[in-house]
Amino acid sequence: MTATKAEFEARLRQIGAERYHDKHPFHAMLHSGGCTPDQVRAWVINRFAYQSAIPRKDAAFMSRVDDPALRRAWRSRIEDHDGTAENEGGIERWLRLADAVGLDRDYVAVKTGILPATTFAVEAYVRFVRDKSLLEAVAASLTELFAPKIHADRIKGLLAHYEFADDTSLSYFRKRLDEAPKDVAFGLGWVLDHADTAEKQDAAAQALIFKTDVLWAQLDALYSAYVTPARIPPGAWQPGTHLRVPEARAS
Amino acid sequence: MTATKAEFEARLRQIGAERYHDKHPFHAMLHSGGCTPDQVRAWVINRFAYQSAIPRKDAAFMSRVDDPALRRAWRSRIEDHDGTAENEGGIERWLRLADAVGLDRDYVAVKTGILPATTFAVEAYVRFVRDKSLLEAVAASLTELFAPKIHADRIKGLLAHYEFADDTSLSYFRKRLDEAPKDVAFGLGWVLDHADTAEKQDAAAQALIFKTDVLWAQLDALYSAYVTPARIPPGAWQPGTHLRVPEARAS
Repeated sequence: MTATKAEFEARLRQIGAERYHDKHPFHAMLHSGGCTPDQVRAWVINRFAYQSAIPRKDAAFMSRVDDPALRRAWRSRIEDHDGTAENEGGIERWLRLADAVGLDRDYVAVKTGILPATTFAVEAYVRFVRDKSLLEAVAASLTELFAPKIHADRIKGLLAHYEFADDTSLSYFRKRLDEAPKDVAFGLGWVLDHADTAEKQDAAAQALIFKTDVLWAQLDALYSAYVTPARIPPGAWQPGTHLRVPEARAS
Repeated sequence: MTATKAEFEARLRQIGAERYHDKHPFHAMLHSGGCTPDQVRAWVINRFAYQSAIPRKDAAFMSRVDDPALRRAWRSRIEDHDGTAENEGGIERWLRLADAVGLDRDYVAVKTGILPATTFAVEAYVRFVRDKSLLEAVAASLTELFAPKIHADRIKGLLAHYEFADDTSLSYFRKRLDEAPKDVAFGLGWVLDHADTAEKQDAAAQALIFKTDVLWAQLDALYSAYVTPARIPPGAWQPGTHLRVPEARAS
């Protein structure tokens, strides 16, 4: 039976309550000051794979949208990440975080040290958006419903526990607190309007579950590689390497 | 053997000299005043399929580009067609042309009367850009090298021969005279830089040939359907239908 919009929204929110990556032990470590400098760096390096893929994901979505108005509404997501004349963009802000934790930003930008499991998860998301229905593609973006809380927790936790944390290094997260609400309001409204059968509601819920898996798998890979007992796969970033300046080594 | 950049550019320009759709008899009819009002309308309806697909094509390109700077450079093409806060965009300008030739713009916008062969050609271009190498995708865009002349000829020819033609109805073509040169300068430079082996030069040349085929096939379909002896396929627009106002019927 088709759920009401309110019931269906509650179902989507419950998925976040159960599966969003704020529940992952790596985030507890990160936000409580429990990460070593190299563990923070590993997170910055790997999360960049995700950040920098988001505009490709959003372009893949737009490449399937026939309605100019929907394309225009979606285009601001690419602008938020890639930047505009007035806004440096989220990718640049993330590289400032890389600077702040002592990493060579050029190394981060080329993504050679990313964990393969991170890349697999991120590219699965890009392909999902390219291949699935538009409804499933928009529904997958709704993890942003749960993002403001994790960003606020992160800003607070990083500021309290890490020397690198300040307004400049954390500008990515502060800016997302402004940007994400407009995106998620649009995306949630679109999904609630378009998931007008039980079958479509199930598909949208599964898409959101898929996306929580994409995020969770990235932290599992990070935990497996860089938290004791660390098992760093061949080719992935080695702690202590690719630092920005010699003194960063000692931070 | 790898050609020099100058030789290779000459090879690309020769493809336009031999194959660009300014050579198609339909354009000779259109620009010389030889088209009936319904033939002009058929062209406006079918060409809209191409115009309105271009942002999807450009988003498909961006979905495959890992370099934020290249994505940013490419994004302006989508803005040119879909519009921005300051610019209504090419799609809206094309619909003004639909108004001017007496068509119901809502009918044009939903694209139900498009010739199947037009849709096949247009979607072949979107898929080409999604599936082929980035070099081939950029090379395919280089038909814009040849566009300023056809747009200038068209403005002059339409103004001379058709009552509907004025600054408002032809604003799409005037605006493209401003926009296309920046795109093509970027695209040509990119192709000349990246086609650095004989094999890549051949692939880029083939991509441009493919694109000239995409444009030519659309005019062939139009000619076959709407120029005497007309063979309009099932489901395609029928002359005299979907007009904006009753008096347009008599124009």
